[in-house]
Amino acid sequence: MRNDPLVIFTPSGKRGRFPVGTPVLTAARKLGVDLDSVCGGRGICSKCQITPSYGEFAKHGVKVSTDALSKWSSVEDKYDRLRGLPEGRRLGCQATLQSDIVIDVPSESQVHKQVVRKRAEAREITMEPATRLYYVEVQEPDMHEPSGDLERLQKALKEQWDLDVAGSDLRTLQLLQPALRKGNWKVTCAIHTASDGPAHVMQVWPGYYEGSIYGLAIDLGSTTIAAHLCDLQSGEVVASSGIMNPQIRFGEDLMSRVSYVMLNPGGEVELTRAVRESMNALIVQVSSDAEIDRELIVEAVLVGNPVMHHLFLGIDPVELGQAPFALASSGSVSLWASEVDMVMHPEARLYILPCIAGHVGADAAAVALSEAPYRSDELVLIVDVGTNAEILLGNKDRVLACSSPTGPAFEGAQISSGQRAAPGAIENVRIDPVSKEPRFKVIGCDLWSDDAGFKAATLSSGITGICGSGIIEIIAEMRLAGLLDAGGLIGSAEQTRTERCIVDGRTNSYVLHDATDDGGPLITVTNGDIRAIQLAKAALYAGARLLMDKMGVESVNRVTLAGAFGAHISAKHAMVLGMIPDCPLENVVSAGNAAGTGARIALLNVSARREIERVVHEIDKIETAIEPKFQDHFVNASNIPHATDPFPILNRIVDIPNVSFNVKQGGRRRQR
Amino acid sequence: MRNDPLVIFTPSGKRGRFPVGTPVLTAARKLGVDLDSVCGGRGICSKCQITPSYGEFAKHGVKVSTDALSKWSSVEDKYDRLRGLPEGRRLGCQATLQSDIVIDVPSESQVHKQVVRKRAEAREITMEPATRLYYVEVQEPDMHEPSGDLERLQKALKEQWDLDVAGSDLRTLQLLQPALRKGNWKVTCAIHTASDGPAHVMQVWPGYYEGSIYGLAIDLGSTTIAAHLCDLQSGEVVASSGIMNPQIRFGEDLMSRVSYVMLNPGGEVELTRAVRESMNALIVQVSSDAEIDRELIVEAVLVGNPVMHHLFLGIDPVELGQAPFALASSGSVSLWASEVDMVMHPEARLYILPCIAGHVGADAAAVALSEAPYRSDELVLIVDVGTNAEILLGNKDRVLACSSPTGPAFEGAQISSGQRAAPGAIENVRIDPVSKEPRFKVIGCDLWSDDAGFKAATLSSGITGICGSGIIEIIAEMRLAGLLDAGGLIGSAEQTRTERCIVDGRTNSYVLHDATDDGGPLITVTNGDIRAIQLAKAALYAGARLLMDKMGVESVNRVTLAGAFGAHISAKHAMVLGMIPDCPLENVVSAGNAAGTGARIALLNVSARREIERVVHEIDKIETAIEPKFQDHFVNASNIPHATDPFPILNRIVDIPNVSFNVKQGGRRRQR
Repeated sequence: MRNDPLVIFTPSGKRGRFPVGTPVLTAARKLGVDLDSVCGGRGICSKCQITPSYGEFAKHGVKVSTDALSKWSSVEDKYDRLRGLPEGRRLGCQATLQSDIVIDVPSESQVHKQVVRKRAEAREITMEPATRLYYVEVQEPDMHEPSGDLERLQKALKEQWDLDVAGSDLRTLQLLQPALRKGNWKVTCAIHTASDGPAHVMQVWPGYYEGSIYGLAIDLGSTTIAAHLCDLQSGEVVASSGIMNPQIRFGEDLMSRVSYVMLNPGGEVELTRAVRESMNALIVQVSSDAEIDRELIVEAVLVGNPVMHHLFLGIDPVELGQAPFALASSGSVSLWASEVDMVMHPEARLYILPCIAGHVGADAAAVALSEAPYRSDELVLIVDVGTNAEILLGNKDRVLACSSPTGPAFEGAQISSGQRAAPGAIENVRIDPVSKEPRFKVIGCDLWSDDAGFKAATLSSGITGICGSGIIEIIAEMRLAGLLDAGGLIGSAEQTRTERCIVDGRTNSYVLHDATDDGGPLITVTNGDIRAIQLAKAALYAGARLLMDKMGVESVNRVTLAGAFGAHISAKHAMVLGMIPDCPLENVVSAGNAAGTGARIALLNVSARREIERVVHEIDKIETAIEPKFQDHFVNASNIPHATDPFPILNRIVDIPNVSFNVKQGGRRRQR
Repeated sequence: MRNDPLVIFTPSGKRGRFPVGTPVLTAARKLGVDLDSVCGGRGICSKCQITPSYGEFAKHGVKVSTDALSKWSSVEDKYDRLRGLPEGRRLGCQATLQSDIVIDVPSESQVHKQVVRKRAEAREITMEPATRLYYVEVQEPDMHEPSGDLERLQKALKEQWDLDVAGSDLRTLQLLQPALRKGNWKVTCAIHTASDGPAHVMQVWPGYYEGSIYGLAIDLGSTTIAAHLCDLQSGEVVASSGIMNPQIRFGEDLMSRVSYVMLNPGGEVELTRAVRESMNALIVQVSSDAEIDRELIVEAVLVGNPVMHHLFLGIDPVELGQAPFALASSGSVSLWASEVDMVMHPEARLYILPCIAGHVGADAAAVALSEAPYRSDELVLIVDVGTNAEILLGNKDRVLACSSPTGPAFEGAQISSGQRAAPGAIENVRIDPVSKEPRFKVIGCDLWSDDAGFKAATLSSGITGICGSGIIEIIAEMRLAGLLDAGGLIGSAEQTRTERCIVDGRTNSYVLHDATDDGGPLITVTNGDIRAIQLAKAALYAGARLLMDKMGVESVNRVTLAGAFGAHISAKHAMVLGMIPDCPLENVVSAGNAAGTGARIALLNVSARREIERVVHEIDKIETAIEPKFQDHFVNASNIPHATDPFPILNRIVDIPNVSFNVKQGGRRRQR
């Protein structure tokens, strides 16, 4: 009615008139304002907190008097005494409209609240989990109208929440009767809504359940398994942890694990058991870190490359080891977590993202979900560097994907002084172009090697080797310092005018760190190391180039480096090495563990699952193994850029010396 | 086209014209004729057999020449050589139309074939199982268009069968890749279509799978667990078996099992384990009897009373032991069979029929499904006699249901010479009204006790006691022979003029069989026995009367006796005893194990599951425990009918002596 109080909600701007005495929560619901409530307006859950604003609002054309809402209720009083209501807040289910009012819904009171993320450019995560809590009051049984307790619970959920619930998990059915009676016919339910339709009750607590429910976002990598434990109500990450993939003992890289299975028929059973056991150790650890009962973990979302995906599911991965690299299933997989032995809530659900192709797995799909190239106006190249590199190129018109066999060199394997990224590993290097002397930083210490106190600070870790991102920097710095030619050969001491270049068999090495006098290691970069990195970076670059060819472009607007490796790599050095296409340095960003983030997005937002299922279907998959141009690009990309190579942006920011070395002792100039 | 051959299918009468050369199967499909095929017309499965008719068909207005179908094909030839095609049969996928033709689809070639049933009046079972076999040819993987093997299988099922399959069970996904390759990209799938929507692949075989798949219809009774193993393609029962319910050691009747749980909190775990173990023993036995691999049992349907239903599901039954008798769930339950530890196909499904009320379970729902009173024009009373009697009364306008606490007397318990129905138990009795001498039959022997050879024929079993249906006959015969008055008292030897009536404490007994001279048993009927049966039959009759009151009727058109007991009971004797309302004897039928039949219907026909779910919802449930009229009826019904009682039909067919006995020794006449 014309004279009813006007209520204006911010930030939505939704407005309407309601009779005096209408609770704010009721008005919000009728207007479709996103205001949370678990208890359904009974003054129990306090999720519906709102902030009324008083005074004159010219913008909205209203003047709000201080008595525009009803007086502080006894429920608010009690809640404030027991747990504290923030200054200026009211409970939306208690405060009723008296006259015109402007009401702000703080972000934490929104059902579809957004999860705060650290990266400014990262996509927002809007809370829309598959499993939610609902508090209901259930009708008592009546002999004249016999119906099951579950059916009366379903009726209550329909009447009080407009929820159509198809049924209950068996365990919940076993717990339901005592819970209803203990809670005096009031219970809190966790309701899971499956992707393909019906909702089920998966847990029930007597009365109002004060706690939360949790979900796990898991990135099952070849080397490590990482998990984020997320609160499914707030979206917060409450604990994160990682564990080594125990399958490493069956083979460092994926193909050697596939070979293990090929040579040991039935061996996939061992690999499956090993990874599932570690998964459970991780679940125990992460729930213990967060100090929660792991039976409160009601959902998990898993991503991983195709081989890990298959091995975790107990599917023999041999088909992935040979053309045509057929996946058992490329679609998303929805399971009970117990089917793969996961020790969480006994009826927890597991969702696995779809795979893109035989070499481009659910991890790449998760990267796509996190970085959303398909929503981008600009053309973005996304590279997830691991044992294989998964490469995505696209914008909102089209997205291409491929996988490139970079091998494990980028992870420090196959490098003479290489090691995993761990304390003591050299990860940053600078070489003085005049003196050719190096300085470096190791993981676990913020000082450079020529800073005072470096020796003391690295006493415990030592200086043990070079990690993957370190080797990139060293080789790029060697190239910039004129120690290395475009073909990847290290000059002699004479040619380079430094004694750090030493004869090493038929080629040379560069001494980065010599602690042999103190019984410590001799850390060098050999021509063999450089060759391994050249092969790896050539594969990566060739994959990116192939996609650029398919897209018909010569350059990209942005490069996103995903993966742990991508997080530590220097964009400039990667470009000096010719790992990635020429691109303004400020447009080369690290997305961190984008696969893990994608898993988290899919965990917190069911619409994102539908989104990535659709996107994966639409991505153009390029199989590098059968593309002749990939070989051409690969051969061409093994060189380290010349000053004359077509890297206009790179050439504007660095000065690449035009040196060329022969092998010192009896070797002949290698064919480039 | 006008000149195309006309094809007329019988028995459907569907007709149409198709171009010369159209396979009969194709024509049948286009006309919506119910012609089966598993292989999709590839000449492999032979399910599409048809019988062409030749000659003149005035009724149809066609004349069929002997070359109206194409010549016998090499595929038919090969099939006939290898397995034999019945005389006059063709394969519908091979024979093509050449000129006008009349084609009969034999019942076994119909997809929705009807299962043959023994009882003439029984409802038909039309095959419409939830799990079916489909043969498909799957596209090989292509690196240029990478997609999972499962996704290509789904595409094939859509293209070749118009089936939307949501996914695959995990185990099938594990088996899929080898099966596709072994079958050279041809596989047979078992597809399960869930009640609430999506279809899933639950098994895959390389190539064409020649075997069948099976389902179990289980009647989980308080005393016995019975199972029918059914072929899900033909609908045939391939094996049936029963096993004692091991919970008997926790209590003979249901309420004593509930008491056990009440007195031993957590005791339901023991009871659940015991019944599940026996269930598995039964599954092993029945599959061994049928000589099939029990992993081929892909589905089960279970019915049982509420207490057994709850205990099997692992739900504490205490609520069922006290008012208001609340079920945990009254709806149907769909589970994985593995969730209740059933040893069948690892991903077999289990469907449990809905319960009607706290005392009227899924077994009563199954009886309703089997006997379908809700489809009947006539008013039918259905009584399932067990430890509790479930009673249904209704017609297509309205159905009422209740449960009546008859106790175990009808099963031979609480009877002095009572025993379970087993060889040696007396089950039929006649007493000569003049000599008062009895003759009887025992289970396991077709002779009467006064026939020649009876003694020899019963030597191995002996004459051991009286079973439930036997006690009904004896008491009714005693009443007809004037040995018993309407109040249930046995006359003295003097009053009855037979020495078989002997003094037994303060009352009398009737000696049915005395083998004490040979060291055998003395089998008598005591006044205590009669009292127990009177209480039981009064409960049964009172329940039926209560429903008749609620329905506002004084008589019913038909009485159906369900249950094993109902199968052996004599309608006339039951009426003499006053167990059932007055009804023409020819309208009193035994439905045998109607609960088991209902389970079988739900197993073979998914629409029947939806039907009974709807029906159960609509049934008016009457709780006898809170109906004062039930008590009145109970008191009034404890007498055994007088000649003057309102049993007009009964009084026309038997002559009930109007005797009345006092207790012989010092007792006083009991109050009626």
